[in-house]
Amino acid sequence: MRVEIWSDIACPWCYIGKARFEKGLAAFAHRDDVEVVHRSFELDPSRAKGDVAPVVDMLALKYGRTREQAQAMEEHVASNARAEGLDYRTEGRDHGSTFDIHRLLHLAKARGRQNELLDLAYRANFAEERSVFDAGALLALAVEAGLDADEAQAVLADESAYADDVRADEREAAELGANGVPFFVLDRRYGVSGGQPAELFTQALEQAWKGRETTPVGGAGAEVCDADGACETPQAGAPA
Amino acid sequence: MRVEIWSDIACPWCYIGKARFEKGLAAFAHRDDVEVVHRSFELDPSRAKGDVAPVVDMLALKYGRTREQAQAMEEHVASNARAEGLDYRTEGRDHGSTFDIHRLLHLAKARGRQNELLDLAYRANFAEERSVFDAGALLALAVEAGLDADEAQAVLADESAYADDVRADEREAAELGANGVPFFVLDRRYGVSGGQPAELFTQALEQAWKGRETTPVGGAGAEVCDADGACETPQAGAPA
Repeated sequence: MRVEIWSDIACPWCYIGKARFEKGLAAFAHRDDVEVVHRSFELDPSRAKGDVAPVVDMLALKYGRTREQAQAMEEHVASNARAEGLDYRTEGRDHGSTFDIHRLLHLAKARGRQNELLDLAYRANFAEERSVFDAGALLALAVEAGLDADEAQAVLADESAYADDVRADEREAAELGANGVPFFVLDRRYGVSGGQPAELFTQALEQAWKGRETTPVGGAGAEVCDADGACETPQAGAPA
Repeated sequence: MRVEIWSDIACPWCYIGKARFEKGLAAFAHRDDVEVVHRSFELDPSRAKGDVAPVVDMLALKYGRTREQAQAMEEHVASNARAEGLDYRTEGRDHGSTFDIHRLLHLAKARGRQNELLDLAYRANFAEERSVFDAGALLALAVEAGLDADEAQAVLADESAYADDVRADEREAAELGANGVPFFVLDRRYGVSGGQPAELFTQALEQAWKGRETTPVGGAGAEVCDADGACETPQAGAPA
């Protein structure tokens, strides 16, 4: 079974939802048969690269609130994170374009290190107040995740590298009806929106597991090698 | 959209079916949004490693036919292959355990080289009469496919490496109802059995594309960051 999770590094409910999903997955009997894939989603896709600002200032501006009220919004999210055992700092964190980190996550996927990089990026952004918005910081994260430094550097330097993969994920999110993140899709059959409780994820996994069957397309009689290893076709020579 | 193809290197209809699928895919408007994944299936899972015999002898024994009749069976398959523009030699090809090549295909998947290795392995087995059954031959194929020689060597030397991945694929094939290969699964929703005509694959891709929607699990109201980038929750401070 495959679970695809659309999320953004800048999305606190994605950070929290990932932890809740992982708790739900740990309680699922067939957890070893579940493959998890990160999919790209930018909360602020029009933001220019290099346009980085403190999160609290961005929130105050976006919602027309005072800095103190914006701080309270962050504290509310932080209390949810801490309830999941996650560190969350509410001062000093920045907001910016996440396009480059998504490109890097696609490189990491191709090299089998995607979950490592994703966890490091979330931790850097929410727990450590480390930047995930400049090339130097991203390169350091890539190396920590086990990627080759030269290869990661080349991807960061070439703005077209994996750019189509990021956009394809985003297009697919829209086609699948995701209107926010985190958005979890189980075997392309069931969708779970938001950072739901762990128990809900376990239930969704169980439901998807039971519901696995495919609709046949095309007639029978096409040439197959069957489960006994027989690749015979009726047209071939008759039995001796 | 994702297409998973269960197949075996030893399966001629898989070799031919892959070419027909790729023709069908090339005619599909959204071909650039299709990800193709190879899944493991062994036609002869009980075969001991090192138990290698000429295919024609194996066919004669399996079906109780003369060597000439077995040769005619191979010729029939070969004519289908050639109709797809594929080379196919009917003499000198061997039959054996494909467990190691499947393990190597999982390494190649993790390194983003799976399709390269799969094409090379099919070509070696069906068109070039090169072995795909001994470690030296497999290492050469791995290197041709762009894998790191030391890493491929380590996987070949460790019989447990990626063994669980091969078995998980095979278990999943059984759970999805595959009773032969090639078996194509589109977005875990539609199944196509056998080396169907290219047009059938195009139709199946179109059907799966139109049918993409997920069933929601869990209530609304879970915490999300929406497509406008808003991560607010009702509990957070009221607007100023």
